Amino acid sequence: MNKHYETIVVGAGVIGSSIAYHLAKRGCSVLLLERESIAGKASSAAAGMLGAQSELKDGNDSLYSLAKASRAMFPALAEELKAYSGIDIGLQQKGIYKMATNEEEREELIAYGEVQRDRGEEARWMEPAELQREEPAVSSQLSGALFLPNDGQVSAPDLSKAFAMSAVELGAELLEYTDVQSLIKEGNQVTGVRTNREDISADHVVVACGAWSEDLLGKQNSGMAMYPVKGECFSVKTKRRLIQGTFFSKGCYIVPKSGGRLVIGATEKPGTFDETVTLGGLFPLIKAATQLVPELVFAEWETAWTGLRPQTEASIPYLGPHENHAGLFIATGHYRNGILLSPITGKVIADLIEGKHVPQEWITTGNLSHRGVNL
Amino acid sequence: MNKHYETIVVGAGVIGSSIAYHLAKRGCSVLLLERESIAGKASSAAAGMLGAQSELKDGNDSLYSLAKASRAMFPALAEELKAYSGIDIGLQQKGIYKMATNEEEREELIAYGEVQRDRGEEARWMEPAELQREEPAVSSQLSGALFLPNDGQVSAPDLSKAFAMSAVELGAELLEYTDVQSLIKEGNQVTGVRTNREDISADHVVVACGAWSEDLLGKQNSGMAMYPVKGECFSVKTKRRLIQGTFFSKGCYIVPKSGGRLVIGATEKPGTFDETVTLGGLFPLIKAATQLVPELVFAEWETAWTGLRPQTEASIPYLGPHENHAGLFIATGHYRNGILLSPITGKVIADLIEGKHVPQEWITTGNLSHRGVNL
Amino acid sequence: MNKHYETIVVGAGVIGSSIAYHLAKRGCSVLLLERESIAGKASSAAAGMLGAQSELKDGNDSLYSLAKASRAMFPALAEELKAYSGIDIGLQQKGIYKMATNEEEREELIAYGEVQRDRGEEARWMEPAELQREEPAVSSQLSGALFLPNDGQVSAPDLSKAFAMSAVELGAELLEYTDVQSLIKEGNQVTGVRTNREDISADHVVVACGAWSEDLLGKQNSGMAMYPVKGECFSVKTKRRLIQGTFFSKGCYIVPKSGGRLVIGATEKPGTFDETVTLGGLFPLIKAATQLVPELVFAEWETAWTGLRPQTEASIPYLGPHENHAGLFIATGHYRNGILLSPITGKVIADLIEGKHVPQEWITTGNLSHRGVNL
Amino acid sequence: MNKHYETIVVGAGVIGSSIAYHLAKRGCSVLLLERESIAGKASSAAAGMLGAQSELKDGNDSLYSLAKASRAMFPALAEELKAYSGIDIGLQQKGIYKMATNEEEREELIAYGEVQRDRGEEARWMEPAELQREEPAVSSQLSGALFLPNDGQVSAPDLSKAFAMSAVELGAELLEYTDVQSLIKEGNQVTGVRTNREDISADHVVVACGAWSEDLLGKQNSGMAMYPVKGECFSVKTKRRLIQGTFFSKGCYIVPKSGGRLVIGATEKPGTFDETVTLGGLFPLIKAATQLVPELVFAEWETAWTGLRPQTEASIPYLGPHENHAGLFIATGHYRNGILLSPITGKVIADLIEGKHVPQEWITTGNLSHRGVNL
Repeated sequence: MNKHYETIVVGAGVIGSSIAYHLAKRGCSVLLLERESIAGKASSAAAGMLGAQSELKDGNDSLYSLAKASRAMFPALAEELKAYSGIDIGLQQKGIYKMATNEEEREELIAYGEVQRDRGEEARWMEPAELQREEPAVSSQLSGALFLPNDGQVSAPDLSKAFAMSAVELGAELLEYTDVQSLIKEGNQVTGVRTNREDISADHVVVACGAWSEDLLGKQNSGMAMYPVKGECFSVKTKRRLIQGTFFSKGCYIVPKSGGRLVIGATEKPGTFDETVTLGGLFPLIKAATQLVPELVFAEWETAWTGLRPQTEASIPYLGPHENHAGLFIATGHYRNGILLSPITGKVIADLIEGKHVPQEWITTGNLSHRGVNL
Repeated sequence: MNKHYETIVVGAGVIGSSIAYHLAKRGCSVLLLERESIAGKASSAAAGMLGAQSELKDGNDSLYSLAKASRAMFPALAEELKAYSGIDIGLQQKGIYKMATNEEEREELIAYGEVQRDRGEEARWMEPAELQREEPAVSSQLSGALFLPNDGQVSAPDLSKAFAMSAVELGAELLEYTDVQSLIKEGNQVTGVRTNREDISADHVVVACGAWSEDLLGKQNSGMAMYPVKGECFSVKTKRRLIQGTFFSKGCYIVPKSGGRLVIGATEKPGTFDETVTLGGLFPLIKAATQLVPELVFAEWETAWTGLRPQTEASIPYLGPHENHAGLFIATGHYRNGILLSPITGKVIADLIEGKHVPQEWITTGNLSHRGVNL
Repeated sequence: MNKHYETIVVGAGVIGSSIAYHLAKRGCSVLLLERESIAGKASSAAAGMLGAQSELKDGNDSLYSLAKASRAMFPALAEELKAYSGIDIGLQQKGIYKMATNEEEREELIAYGEVQRDRGEEARWMEPAELQREEPAVSSQLSGALFLPNDGQVSAPDLSKAFAMSAVELGAELLEYTDVQSLIKEGNQVTGVRTNREDISADHVVVACGAWSEDLLGKQNSGMAMYPVKGECFSVKTKRRLIQGTFFSKGCYIVPKSGGRLVIGATEKPGTFDETVTLGGLFPLIKAATQLVPELVFAEWETAWTGLRPQTEASIPYLGPHENHAGLFIATGHYRNGILLSPITGKVIADLIEGKHVPQEWITTGNLSHRGVNL
Repeated sequence: MNKHYETIVVGAGVIGSSIAYHLAKRGCSVLLLERESIAGKASSAAAGMLGAQSELKDGNDSLYSLAKASRAMFPALAEELKAYSGIDIGLQQKGIYKMATNEEEREELIAYGEVQRDRGEEARWMEPAELQREEPAVSSQLSGALFLPNDGQVSAPDLSKAFAMSAVELGAELLEYTDVQSLIKEGNQVTGVRTNREDISADHVVVACGAWSEDLLGKQNSGMAMYPVKGECFSVKTKRRLIQGTFFSKGCYIVPKSGGRLVIGATEKPGTFDETVTLGGLFPLIKAATQLVPELVFAEWETAWTGLRPQTEASIPYLGPHENHAGLFIATGHYRNGILLSPITGKVIADLIEGKHVPQEWITTGNLSHRGVNL
C-alpha cells in the first residue's frame, strides 16, 4: 500500500464527483475512483430536473430543506464549474409546470399549491387559457397547471462531467476503470480500499456508488436497504423551441434542452439492474408526451436510454458517516433527485469530513448501526 | 471526355447495383456511379421482404409475374453473391403470414387465398389455433392468417452491398461521391454523363436513382411521373427468436433477422423527401406490433430509420429503354418492392442492353414518349 | 407558385443560416431552404477556429479586414444567439499559437509577428521556455511559437445551429430536405426557385450552398470557378484540459473544446466530393499532433469525420450580388474560414439586400459577368 | 433459494456461452448468468483468428493439441449454430500468412515452417513473388511469408452470440444484467451463487468470467494468478476485397471480414482494466498495417475499440475442476485464443460435468490447491 490520500471517493457519478469537487476546492487530497468512466450510468441518464418543489411533495421536511438548499446553490455553481472546467452545465431557471390532465389532478394540484404558498414557496395555479398563453404548445385538453417558477433544470451529463473535471483541475486525482473490491479496515477504522489494481489507504472513504453501493457495503452487512429503480427515457429534436418550462404530468415529463432537444422520461421499474430500453417502456411515454404536447408527433426521434436510480427503503438518501465505522461515509440513495441534490451532498460530506457543522436533520445514516451487523 | 464504358449505371442502390452485377458477370464494361455511398438510402432502409404474393395482390398480372420470376432467382443468387463477395444475404424462406386482426380482414384474406390457389400459387389459411401452434408468440386475439410459404426475406443492406461488391469483383468500376448532373446527348442519342468530376462517355446509360431519378430525368422532361413515399421503421432485439416467418398486418410488418433482431415497419408518407423519424410515425407502429406479438413489449429497442421509396403514378416501376432516346434505359419506381424485384430488374436491363429477348409485358417505358416533351 | 418571400436563402450551413438570422432580425420575411438538414456538412465538420490573423497571412487586405471585422462580432453574437436559441456557441478567446517546429519556421513566424505588429495587431513571439510555462503540455522540442491573443474559436456545430434556430425564433421559415433544382427567372431577374416540392417566389435569392453552390449556379454558366477541398479531422478526449489556446502547426491544428475534447485537423484534398475518412489521412495528423503535444498518446480516441470546404480559384469567397442577374446574391467560397466569416457575411448580405452601404472592397462578385455566359 | 439448476455458468462471453451451449445440447438444465449483456466485452472485441498454428508456436504441446482439436470443430459447428440460431458465424478457411518483414523474421519463419511440417502440419514458405501472386495487395517490401492454410477466422461477435442464442433455443436460461457476487458453499461443496437479485442453487458452477474471473474467485483465495491484457483494434472498409487470407506480422494483424471490412489489431497492454482506445495505441497499428498493405491508406476508417484478454501467469488457460471445491469448475485465462478455444472448452467442461473422459493433459487446474488457501 504505497499511496495515501486524505479522502477516497468511490464512484464518479454526479454525487461522488461533487464530493470530490468540494473537497479539492478546499485543498484536501482526494482520489476519485470509478469502475468504468465518469458519469457513465444514472448521472448521464438523468433528465436534469431541479424539482425541489415538484418532486418532493410528500412532506418529508428534512429532505425538502436539503433539496431547497441544493437548488439555491446552482446559479453560483454554474459560474464556478464553467470557470474551472470550461463546461456550461445548461442551467435553465424557467420553472416546472405540474400539469393537471383531469379534474382530480386539478384539485390535487390546486391544493398542493396552497400548501406550497403556506410554506412560503412560490407556486402559481394557471387556468388552461393562461397556461396556453405562456406555453402555446401545450394541449388544449389540460385542466390547468401548477407553475413552480423556482424549479428548473440542468444538463445532467454536463453537470456530472463538470464536477469531475473541475475536481481534477483543482488537484483531485481520478482513476477510471478501477473497481473497488472491498474496504480495508483496522479494527473499527476504515483505512483504505482494495481495488483490482492495488490497495490504497486514506483517512476517509466515501461510498457514492449509486445503485451499486450495496455491492461494496452490503456484502459486509452495512445495515443499508436499497434497490435500483430502472428508468427509461428518450429524446427528440425540433427546429424551434416548443416549450420554455419543464412539463411534468403523471405519465411523463418533458424537459427542453439546448438546440431544440427535448428529453422525455421516465419509467419506474424497481428491482432490476437491466439497462435495456423496451418497447413496452417507450410506448406509454410517447403516448403521454404527445397527449401533453400534440405537436410532438412531428418531432424527430433521436435516441433512447436507461438509468438505474438508487432508491432506499426509507425513501430518503443515505447521507453521513457510518456510525459503526470511523472514516467511512455514505452518500447514495438519491433516487430521482441525484442531480438536484448533488451540490448540497458534496458540501455536506466535505463539511463532515472537515469536522464542520451540518444540520443534524440532514444526516440520515444514524440508524445504520441498528440494522446492520458489524461491518 | 477521356473515359468510355459500354454502360454507365447511375445509382448504386440495390437496383443499380444488380444491373451492374448482371452486366459485369456477362463481361460488359460497366461504370457504377453513386452520389453518396453504395446502398446509402432506401436500399439499406428496406426490411427485405420478398412478398411476391403478399404485396402484389391487386391483380397487376405483369408486375406479379415479374415479382415471381424475381423471387425464384434468390436461392441461386444467394450462393453466387456469397462466392463473389463473401457476403451472406440472409435469405430466409420461411413464408409470410398475412394476419387477420378482425372478421373483415379474415374474410378478405380467405378470399385472397382462394384467388392465389386458383392461380396455382401456394396459400394456406390458418385458423387461430393452428397459427399459434406454428408461431406461439402471435397474439391470441387474431382471427387467423393467410400463410404464403413461398414468400420470404433477405437482409436488404447485405443484398445491396453484395450486388455492388460482386460487380466490382467481376470488373465493374465503382465511383462513389460522384453526382451525375446531366446526360450528354448527340441528337437523339445519349452518349454519356456529366458528373461533378468529369464527363464520361458510354454506349448505354441506365438511370437507377430511385426516388431521385426525376432529378436527373425530370428536369429534362422525361415523361415520367414519380413521387417519394417516406417510410419509417425501427428494430428491436430479443435473446431468442420470437417468430420464424414474417408477419404482415394492416398496421405493420415484423421481419425476423439474424441474431434475434426484428425489423418493424413501415409508415407511408407520400410526397416528402424528409428523412427524419417522427414520434407520430413510431407510435402506431409500436402499437400495431405489440398487438400482433404481445411479448414485444419486452423486446429491446435498437434504432429507427427512414427510407424514401420511389413510387410512380401508375404504381408500376419504369423498366426499359426510353423510347425517344437511344442509349438511355430507366430502372426505377419499384416502390416497396425494390429488394424483391432487384434480381429480375438487373437481368432484364442487362438482356435489353445485350439485345436479348425480354417479355414485352415487363417493359413499362413505352408510354414515356407520349407524356414527355423532347428530353 | 403560391408562396412569396422577400428573401430565399439556399443552404442552411453556417453561412446561409447567418444570412437568414440577420435578415430575420431586421424583420424581413425569409425562407431558408436546405437539401438535407441544417449544418449537416462542412459547417458541423469545422474545428471552429477564428483565425483572422493565424489563417490569413498572405496579405490579402480586403479579406483580412473582412475577417477582422467578423472576429470582432463574436462576443456580442454569442450573447444574442444564446438569448434567442438557448445555445451556447462555446466562444473561447484564448488565442492561437502558431508553432515553429524548426528553425526555418521560427524565422518565418518571427518575421510574420513583426508584420502583424506593424499592422497594429497583437502578436507575441514566445521562446520555448515561455511557451512551456504558458502551455505545459506542449512539446519541449519546439522552436517557439507566435502567439496571437485575439484569435480564438467556437463550437462550429453549435454556432451553425444557433444561427438557424435563432432565425426561426425571429420568424424565418426553415424547410429541410428540400432540394433547389433551379432558379426561376423572368428575363434578367431571378424571381424564385424551383424545388423538388414546389416553385417558390422571392424578391431576392441568396445562394449559400458551400461546395455545392456550382451545382445550382455553375450549370447555368455563373462565371464562378470553385472546387471542394476535402478535410479529415478527428477528436479525442482527456480527463483534464491539456491545453488552453489553440495550437496550429504546419502539420495539424489542435483545438481544445468543452469537457476535455480536442479537435485535431485537417487534411487538404482538393477536387473530390468523397466524404470518407481514410487511414492515409489520419496517419500524418496523429503523427503531427502527438509530436506537438506528446501527452496526446494517452488521449482517448473519440471519432473521425470529414468536411468539404468550398474553395474558389481566386482564393477569396464570392460575396455579393451577381452582376448580370437582378435579385441574385452569392455567398460561398469561404474555404477554411466559413465559421470565422459567417457573422460578417450575414451582415453584408443583409445590408446589400436592404440597400445599405457595404465597403466596396468586400464585394467580390464583380467579375462574374466577365467570366460567365448569360445565366 | 427457490431455483435449482444442474449447472450455472457465470459469464456469457464466448467461453461461457459455448459451455452453456454444449450442456444444453446434451439436455442438461443450465443457467447462464451475465453481469451486463452477452458477448459484451472481449468476445466481441476479438478479431476472430483461428490461429492454432500461427499463435501457438512456443512448443506448449498440450495447449497446441487443444487448439488443433478446437479448430477442427469449426466447420461442423458453423452448420449447427446456423441451424439453431440463424446466425452465420462467418467462418473463413483461407489460411493465415505469417509475414516476414526482414531477413531475421524470414529465417525464423522458414525454421518454424520446418518444425510445423515435422509435426505433420501444413505450412508452406512463400517467396515474395509467389506471395504477391496469391495476395497482390501485399507490400513488395516483404521478405516472404509462411502460409498456414489450415488456420482461418470467424466473426467473433457472431460466434459468441450464436453460442448463447443456440443455448437458449436448446433450453438454457439466460439472465443478463445479473451480477454474481459470491459463491455459496456448504463445507467443501459449492452449491450455488449469490447474485444481486437472488440466491440460486446448482450442482455445478462454472466460472467463465474472462478477465474478471478473479473478482469472483480471487477474493476467496482461489490459487489463481491472472491479469488483463488490454488490446486496441480498429476496422476499415474497402469497396473490394483487398486480401483473402489473414495477415499476421510482428506489428499487427489484418483480418478480412464480410463486406469489405478489415479488422486490424492489436496492442498488448498488461495489467489495466482501462477500456479506452488511445492515440498512442492506434498509431503503431496504422503504421504497421499500411506498411504491410500499402493500399490501406485509401481504406475508409470505420471505428476502434478495445478488449481485455484474460491472461494467466503460466500463460495457459485455467480449464477444469477446482481441486479443493466439489462442484466448482474454472474456464478462463484463454488470453488471445478465446475464440479459437471456445468450442473445445465447451466440450471439455461439459464432458467433465457429465463425468466423461477428458485427456488429462488438457486439465490445467490441478495446481490451484497448492497455491490458494482454502476457498
